[in-house]
Amino acid sequence: MTATPTPGAWQLARRADRLNPSTIREILKITERPGIISLAGGLPSADTFPVAAMREATARVLRDQPREALQYAASEGYAPLREWVAGELATQGLACDASQVLITTGSQQGLDLVGKVLIDPGSTVAVESPTYLGALQAFAPYEPEFFAVEGDDDGPLPQSLDAACAGRDKPRFVYLLPNFQNPTGRCVSAERRLALVDRAAALGLPIVEDNPYGDLWFDTPPPPPLSARAGVGVGVCDGGVDGGVGGAVYLGSFSKVLAPGLRLGYLVAPKAIYPKLLQAKQAADLHTPGFNQRVVYEVIKNGFLTQHVPTIRARYKLQRDAMSAALTQHMQRLVAGGCRWQVPVGGMFFWLTLPPHIDAAALLPRAVEAGMAYVPGSAFFPHGGHANTLRLSFVTASPQQIDTAVAALAQALASA
Amino acid sequence: MTATPTPGAWQLARRADRLNPSTIREILKITERPGIISLAGGLPSADTFPVAAMREATARVLRDQPREALQYAASEGYAPLREWVAGELATQGLACDASQVLITTGSQQGLDLVGKVLIDPGSTVAVESPTYLGALQAFAPYEPEFFAVEGDDDGPLPQSLDAACAGRDKPRFVYLLPNFQNPTGRCVSAERRLALVDRAAALGLPIVEDNPYGDLWFDTPPPPPLSARAGVGVGVCDGGVDGGVGGAVYLGSFSKVLAPGLRLGYLVAPKAIYPKLLQAKQAADLHTPGFNQRVVYEVIKNGFLTQHVPTIRARYKLQRDAMSAALTQHMQRLVAGGCRWQVPVGGMFFWLTLPPHIDAAALLPRAVEAGMAYVPGSAFFPHGGHANTLRLSFVTASPQQIDTAVAALAQALASA
Repeated sequence: MTATPTPGAWQLARRADRLNPSTIREILKITERPGIISLAGGLPSADTFPVAAMREATARVLRDQPREALQYAASEGYAPLREWVAGELATQGLACDASQVLITTGSQQGLDLVGKVLIDPGSTVAVESPTYLGALQAFAPYEPEFFAVEGDDDGPLPQSLDAACAGRDKPRFVYLLPNFQNPTGRCVSAERRLALVDRAAALGLPIVEDNPYGDLWFDTPPPPPLSARAGVGVGVCDGGVDGGVGGAVYLGSFSKVLAPGLRLGYLVAPKAIYPKLLQAKQAADLHTPGFNQRVVYEVIKNGFLTQHVPTIRARYKLQRDAMSAALTQHMQRLVAGGCRWQVPVGGMFFWLTLPPHIDAAALLPRAVEAGMAYVPGSAFFPHGGHANTLRLSFVTASPQQIDTAVAALAQALASA
Repeated sequence: MTATPTPGAWQLARRADRLNPSTIREILKITERPGIISLAGGLPSADTFPVAAMREATARVLRDQPREALQYAASEGYAPLREWVAGELATQGLACDASQVLITTGSQQGLDLVGKVLIDPGSTVAVESPTYLGALQAFAPYEPEFFAVEGDDDGPLPQSLDAACAGRDKPRFVYLLPNFQNPTGRCVSAERRLALVDRAAALGLPIVEDNPYGDLWFDTPPPPPLSARAGVGVGVCDGGVDGGVGGAVYLGSFSKVLAPGLRLGYLVAPKAIYPKLLQAKQAADLHTPGFNQRVVYEVIKNGFLTQHVPTIRARYKLQRDAMSAALTQHMQRLVAGGCRWQVPVGGMFFWLTLPPHIDAAALLPRAVEAGMAYVPGSAFFPHGGHANTLRLSFVTASPQQIDTAVAALAQALASA
């Protein structure tokens, strides 16, 4: 006979109240039915996955180092991969030591570890508004209060950091995505980066910089990372001054330049907090799969990305152009009514502001009926609202599909 | 010039105080020098890794389904693998639905998710004493108070669950490892399992059952899992009664039967808490690498484990026998002084109790000097102490090495 525990014996932790279904993942489920062109997901084009290189690399790893690749491994990550990351970041102006690199199970895990180590219940965390939904979800169970940093087309406003620090509780950190931000596609200007870092430094406000999209530029690379100026605690930073400062944690990912299904990312942290992040990593999953780390290292160790990433850029640029053209063609007549967008210079997304009276979530069923899907923008805002915004991804669908889908969106909008 | 943040701008969360370096991982670093035979690590023998099967499976996955394997995927896990897990557990008497299976990045992540969703600061969590160190580390940052469940050679004592529930705060759950527990190797008897589950049910005390070693039995399989009787909330459980109860979460792993470097585990949870665990999983790393999930499914889908696992059992049994013989040969004369051990009937570990005046941590340098290493037992106890205990792994070293290492241990002990 089955033993019968008291019903409801499970008691949830208070933080579980802050865990909620991902709006995007729920929408993806609805919109994955056949015949719908989805511009909702942020899925890299599978055509860009380096399958042949992966095949060779996995065969090589399983031939030459199977025992090491399949065994338990160091929580810090695979040493040659950590060295590679440190070397790669140096070329972007971010000086760090391989000992500061922690390989993570996707950069999403980096966000979780940062939250676990730095956020107390009630702590303030400053975030862009809108910002990456996955970061809000990673931080939320640690029960922060979000401060919404204001911004303009150049990026977050430095004076808004003053406002963030004027309250009772100085934020534990400000979370920033300077390159082709998800969801807006905005790239922070070089001048604004300097002003933001210097303001944060003056305020003693640590920066958590997330850069999953930085390699996906279309014409010119973005300015150096914020962390190059803020410093991650060692090395010669931006201009030759030896920075022992450590004003930033930097998060990176292989998801957009290789493939997300490998779940491989990294963080770089100042020595003041690296050990705690490492211990949190150990507690969370012991280590990121060593097999995946070695395979990716085999793929990239001889400069593969310098050949491969430009092909992704070229493809996404064409798709960006297709979406830009489609928006102009099908939606230009809605601009007078208050419809607005900017053409992103990298990344994966267009961000649309609709006329104030239109609720993008309410409009979605009509768009799906017309044959397309998008993500309503409200979920990206730390305090919700902004119902008249939406995000369109241009990397998963073909140029032809993009045109069809944008026309369908315009049709749904016109009928609203 | 580098911007200069206020030094010490980083403020750690209170929970970070509870994150500490892993004793075992620190010891492993010291003892990995050449010439030392380490019985310290819990590393499966690399000779058991199914390299040929992995080679075929990775080639097949990258030939037939590269786009799916390398793309973002569902947080729940790969559906066929979840079905496989549900089917496999059914053969062990644990009825569950595939919709209750959550694929995790190693079963260590399952522990982290359980902690995140169920433990509030100050909550009581009941654990065996000693218990798996990684569970203490996973739970600790959520700031529980640990209640040490007493036990004997048959397993934890049911009346100790009463004691656990007698205090001000009933434990959120009791964490139990019935099969060849790490570190003691103890297998809980069938009678004790029934008594424990029934007592927990009567007390309304949820069970978190961890079973990484259950497949590694040497003569006869262990009794059915605790969760078979406690129920995970659906299906026909133990004796034909439809159990809608959900008294247990069950954690499993592919690390010991395939390879740990893939970081692939799973949990099975009652519907009352599955959604929160899933949302915590999304927040933690979006999903477990889809590539790894598909490769493992390709390896196991046609019954590979029914051929493969017996070879692991046979190997480990020989090594267990070697360690048993070595202990008898080299340490029998120390039994009169209070040295004790039991011969485990499965798993990976012997647990030694030394004479009360001997501190295993203090003895370790002498043992390393003599050419071997072990893990002092104190770290496995939720409240420390028990300095006269240690853990020996018999799965990584060969029978000859085991004999040499145990002789060295006896020599170090004799000189103490």
